[in-house]
Amino acid sequence: MGIINDNFLLKNETARKLYNDFAKDMPIIDYHCHLSPKMIAEDYQFKNAYDLFLGGDHYKWRQMRTMGIDEEYITGDADEYEKWLGFAKTMPYLIGNPLYHWTALELKRYFDIDTPLTPDTAKEIWDTVNEKLKGDDFSAKTLIRRSNVDVICTTDNPYDTLEYHKQLKDFETKVLPAFRPDLSDIKSDITDRMDYFHQNGCRLSDHAIDEMNDELIEKLVFLGEEYAKRGWVWQLHIGAMRNNNTRMFKKLGADTGFDSVNDFQIAEGLSKLLDALDQKDMLPKTILYCLNPKDNYVLGTMLGNFQRGPAMGKIQFGSGWWFNDNKDGMETQMQALANLGTLGTFVGMLTDSRSFVSYPRHEYFRRILCNLLGKWVEDGEYPKDYKALEQIVKGVCYNNAKEYFGF
Amino acid sequence: MGIINDNFLLKNETARKLYNDFAKDMPIIDYHCHLSPKMIAEDYQFKNAYDLFLGGDHYKWRQMRTMGIDEEYITGDADEYEKWLGFAKTMPYLIGNPLYHWTALELKRYFDIDTPLTPDTAKEIWDTVNEKLKGDDFSAKTLIRRSNVDVICTTDNPYDTLEYHKQLKDFETKVLPAFRPDLSDIKSDITDRMDYFHQNGCRLSDHAIDEMNDELIEKLVFLGEEYAKRGWVWQLHIGAMRNNNTRMFKKLGADTGFDSVNDFQIAEGLSKLLDALDQKDMLPKTILYCLNPKDNYVLGTMLGNFQRGPAMGKIQFGSGWWFNDNKDGMETQMQALANLGTLGTFVGMLTDSRSFVSYPRHEYFRRILCNLLGKWVEDGEYPKDYKALEQIVKGVCYNNAKEYFGF
Amino acid sequence: MGIINDNFLLKNETARKLYNDFAKDMPIIDYHCHLSPKMIAEDYQFKNAYDLFLGGDHYKWRQMRTMGIDEEYITGDADEYEKWLGFAKTMPYLIGNPLYHWTALELKRYFDIDTPLTPDTAKEIWDTVNEKLKGDDFSAKTLIRRSNVDVICTTDNPYDTLEYHKQLKDFETKVLPAFRPDLSDIKSDITDRMDYFHQNGCRLSDHAIDEMNDELIEKLVFLGEEYAKRGWVWQLHIGAMRNNNTRMFKKLGADTGFDSVNDFQIAEGLSKLLDALDQKDMLPKTILYCLNPKDNYVLGTMLGNFQRGPAMGKIQFGSGWWFNDNKDGMETQMQALANLGTLGTFVGMLTDSRSFVSYPRHEYFRRILCNLLGKWVEDGEYPKDYKALEQIVKGVCYNNAKEYFGF
Repeated sequence: MGIINDNFLLKNETARKLYNDFAKDMPIIDYHCHLSPKMIAEDYQFKNAYDLFLGGDHYKWRQMRTMGIDEEYITGDADEYEKWLGFAKTMPYLIGNPLYHWTALELKRYFDIDTPLTPDTAKEIWDTVNEKLKGDDFSAKTLIRRSNVDVICTTDNPYDTLEYHKQLKDFETKVLPAFRPDLSDIKSDITDRMDYFHQNGCRLSDHAIDEMNDELIEKLVFLGEEYAKRGWVWQLHIGAMRNNNTRMFKKLGADTGFDSVNDFQIAEGLSKLLDALDQKDMLPKTILYCLNPKDNYVLGTMLGNFQRGPAMGKIQFGSGWWFNDNKDGMETQMQALANLGTLGTFVGMLTDSRSFVSYPRHEYFRRILCNLLGKWVEDGEYPKDYKALEQIVKGVCYNNAKEYFGF
Repeated sequence: MGIINDNFLLKNETARKLYNDFAKDMPIIDYHCHLSPKMIAEDYQFKNAYDLFLGGDHYKWRQMRTMGIDEEYITGDADEYEKWLGFAKTMPYLIGNPLYHWTALELKRYFDIDTPLTPDTAKEIWDTVNEKLKGDDFSAKTLIRRSNVDVICTTDNPYDTLEYHKQLKDFETKVLPAFRPDLSDIKSDITDRMDYFHQNGCRLSDHAIDEMNDELIEKLVFLGEEYAKRGWVWQLHIGAMRNNNTRMFKKLGADTGFDSVNDFQIAEGLSKLLDALDQKDMLPKTILYCLNPKDNYVLGTMLGNFQRGPAMGKIQFGSGWWFNDNKDGMETQMQALANLGTLGTFVGMLTDSRSFVSYPRHEYFRRILCNLLGKWVEDGEYPKDYKALEQIVKGVCYNNAKEYFGF
Repeated sequence: MGIINDNFLLKNETARKLYNDFAKDMPIIDYHCHLSPKMIAEDYQFKNAYDLFLGGDHYKWRQMRTMGIDEEYITGDADEYEKWLGFAKTMPYLIGNPLYHWTALELKRYFDIDTPLTPDTAKEIWDTVNEKLKGDDFSAKTLIRRSNVDVICTTDNPYDTLEYHKQLKDFETKVLPAFRPDLSDIKSDITDRMDYFHQNGCRLSDHAIDEMNDELIEKLVFLGEEYAKRGWVWQLHIGAMRNNNTRMFKKLGADTGFDSVNDFQIAEGLSKLLDALDQKDMLPKTILYCLNPKDNYVLGTMLGNFQRGPAMGKIQFGSGWWFNDNKDGMETQMQALANLGTLGTFVGMLTDSRSFVSYPRHEYFRRILCNLLGKWVEDGEYPKDYKALEQIVKGVCYNNAKEYFGF
């Protein structure tokens, strides 16, 4: 009765062929995530289903709060099985929510569990997962190995020592740092830190653009130029509104499920920023993400203003971010990109996740991609030219990112 | 040749089963409408098809104006059959418009008329409707009785005497007042009026947020706190731009079909408002509606910032409002809610209507809901678990609202 | 293996019937384009496939830049076949992009070429096209004749002599000027120029609204009143952000592929503008276009504020413009219009194009229109009333525009 089977999200023959022949076996380049390098380096062993699935996942906390569950049973001191049960109670109500699909995929792919998580099955799944976690197949490194991951880029404070990245030099998956400065606090030694990150394999930075004004643009021009010098890619994550709940911020701090979508104007500021760098011939490869889907057409057309060889897709429209990281959000982003730009040059999916079992989100993305392409083909909007389709699918799943980031 | 049949809008087997087994027979809680309590109390008898269908319906007037019909034949002194004919002339052009579906549903459900309204059928339908209106089945109270309505919340001026609500105490459908203050004119006795409304069964307020600024937020914080003290729910209707046509406003006044969608920024102001109340532990149960669908993701994620037990779905994303009160708008709102929140906790539909034959809009909503859920199930995105689905469907149709409002 | 066949984009029987019986053979009124009247008057003969397909088409240049092609091979001095090859290389990556469909349609309709353009077929198609271009069937005038075009409205500087329009007086397709003033530079003789244009058949003006402020509104009120006096239609194209790339603007000038979508607020300014004119009883027939689809519901509801007989659909929501001129954009615009207004009164498609082979975009639009209507009918949302459907289809394809513009 589980929902995960070979045809999950693949609604026609062409979609299934594209997925099975071209997408399924491609390795993963997870170029933006929030995994802890320490946990990887120390090969963290998960204590139980709560620790693995719920411990740090504020996406799930939000929905548990929506169910009216007391905070004690979410981030508080309640028994961990009780918390698990609270999540199980929430699950059936999450129809249409990505958490429903993600959880089903994670249980299936890592634990071969088909049974949907409900209050009735919570105990059985808790026991099965916990039993399996005692074995060798579920340490941090093993989970990564089992997921066919080529490269991981973590997200790091510029003042991080990168000691864990150094320890991971011989791990078969490349675990590289990404540079994430706090834009409200850029210090004079910031370029030294870039050099240090560069020496340790960093080729990518990330910025939260939670407002848009001249002062911020000026800082970004400075940083962009430094990235261009070093040949880095930068990512601009635009439009979050954070820590909206003061009471809970005081209690739990940031990144605990109290952020949402903002609606400020971005087009003119973003144009000014990219133009200032382009005029100096110092515009790095750029990935633009928006949190508010009202900005999809602003970003999707901004790309074209600054595309320039020799790179393919120098300016990228990033995959559906955070609240858009779901089937509708991914489809909307890919349809906008296809309409406005060149979908075949897209660098594709990233997890943006704190969880070691979130790699099936790449599978999720690939199924959605192949289903979209398959639909266009079966609707007669693109020829059944499998040579071209293979290039597109493998490109978006893996090859484009490999080429773009130079990994 | 009529479009209303058992399968209307239900495109697959699961959808039909969900609708027939779980949705169809649930009573209605119409927690926000603009029905006249006077007309209910006096058990108003409709004079003719014009009086029932067109008399106060500015949705229809707009489309008649679009057809180029002279105002004389819309709100003017023309013969009422001529006005009816003007509407009939408009109907065939309204392909894809909710008025087309609503009218077909209203003619079918209350008059058992299948014939589509066109200029050719206008006279026949006029005669049939008028003949039936002479009988006992079409007074205000009877129309409500025939519609299986448990509770009606009207929308009332704080200085209303509520005399008609008092007269309706023994009517089998609860007819309760809702408190709708004019935010530009809050007087010092406003809390006395809340007490008076409370004594007369009011548990719900409503506000038009047509701009967003600090002064307004301050007023709303004051009101919100008072509602929280009384355990009321409040509704915030955000984003209308009213009385755009000065010439017609002078001629006809407000609410005559000259309002439209605004596009001001709402995220930061709304966050500030809800946070200020939450910090005082005085945030009432809240329903947020947006008129501009560009704000769907702002609202859909704002909820999560302030959810808090013990209520399920304390902060609600209101059903597609006004210009969004159509199939696309409802689907878009429910998909956004499902992606961003917990659809299973949704309090569902309200009519927001001035018309006594608008209850089939609940049927319309329920069909759209069941079709959406049925699609997800048949697409393999949710298990065919009828126990869970029953809980969701009955919840969204009735049970969640009953619990939420405490009726 | 080509994608263009009788059923292209027509996914059900009703759609196919509507297209074949009512849409296909209707003539074209192309009421807004950027064709060169000089090229028509001189009956320009195209030199080769580059000249016809790529020479002035910045839509294509953008995507070639995205592929990383050097500017030399786009707008530079490279060999024209090399440029053609660059475009052919881009084509397979353009899955989901309107350029893919447009190019396929153009090759099929004008050259009877089914083969998709790819790097492998580039030479063969280059040769075939160039060979055919030597014949009599491909001059500017012949291409227009072959496309069943009744009326063309070009877009002209107020100080244009209109000499070519005069020369075209006897051409079987009416080629009329449209008045496009630069809003930053309105001179005192502007009304004289309107008179001159009027004498030369102009009945239509066009404005780029790239910002929204009181000064601009005041200018527009002045112009609008002048248009109303003359019985002209005006078009407002709202929301572009132009010449974003300073480096390339210095090199290539305007309209070379460096424009994108802006996100400023438009609702209040637009309401003020239309209301000011309506109050004076001097609001011309108006077509509103938005570049940012976030504004669809603002425009779609603004119409209703100012509709007024005797014209049908006096205020129009313009067809998907520029970056929205694709299947999704057209469907979104028509669904918004249907939900909010009266789709049956829509004046339909225009090319907005600089290309002499862009008339199949009307075919593209008509197929999408008929598919949308056909879907509603087969989904049981509108009766299979072919009399009404014929009126809608023929209206939107041709009759409504003919009536509206008075051609």
